[in-house]
Amino acid sequence: MLQLNENKSSKTEEKIAKEALKIAYERETSTLIASIRDRASLLTELEELWYVHDLLSTKRHEIDGKYSYNPSTIVFDFARLVKEGWLNLDELKGLKPEMLSKISALARM
Amino acid sequence: MLQLNENKSSKTEEKIAKEALKIAYERETSTLIASIRDRASLLTELEELWYVHDLLSTKRHEIDGKYSYNPSTIVFDFARLVKEGWLNLDELKGLKPEMLSKISALARM
Repeated sequence: MLQLNENKSSKTEEKIAKEALKIAYERETSTLIASIRDRASLLTELEELWYVHDLLSTKRHEIDGKYSYNPSTIVFDFARLVKEGWLNLDELKGLKPEMLSKISALARM
Repeated sequence: MLQLNENKSSKTEEKIAKEALKIAYERETSTLIASIRDRASLLTELEELWYVHDLLSTKRHEIDGKYSYNPSTIVFDFARLVKEGWLNLDELKGLKPEMLSKISALARM
């Protein structure tokens, strides 16, 4: 019975975590799209174009690794998203309180 | 004296070649900048952004290797630029006639 409850609880946790990842992903990617659109509208020099290219290379690599759900790193992953401003702690409500405390503490570091 | 004339002639040739490379480079890069500016203004999806990124990766690699002056490959380099529309044969006037014929023939292949 305890086992069942724990399973149920971690299922809910997974759902909350995945939902939060999705919200943050949407925020970061739509902000990136808008910023590239703005930046590109002012392009006149090749150096600026390569700068945009470098920026996209970095961002693509970053985003690729950042939004997959991984229970063993989720505390650090969320702390990073909160620190970077893509997620509010409020949006993680429903996770275990000790997990939320850790995320909050790490995000302030 | 023949040696001197040949040196003089190849100096002129080098100057013509470098000038033509510069013209083609300016054309290709300014066309690229304008096309990315236009394309980026319509960006709404992340897949489109990564498409632009892939395009820039390819173009950057291509352009990096394409515009350095190399006497041993200059016939092929110019044929490619003519074929791609970045250069007119007229703009290579002053190069040896047999070189121009080769460039023209290769560009039509």
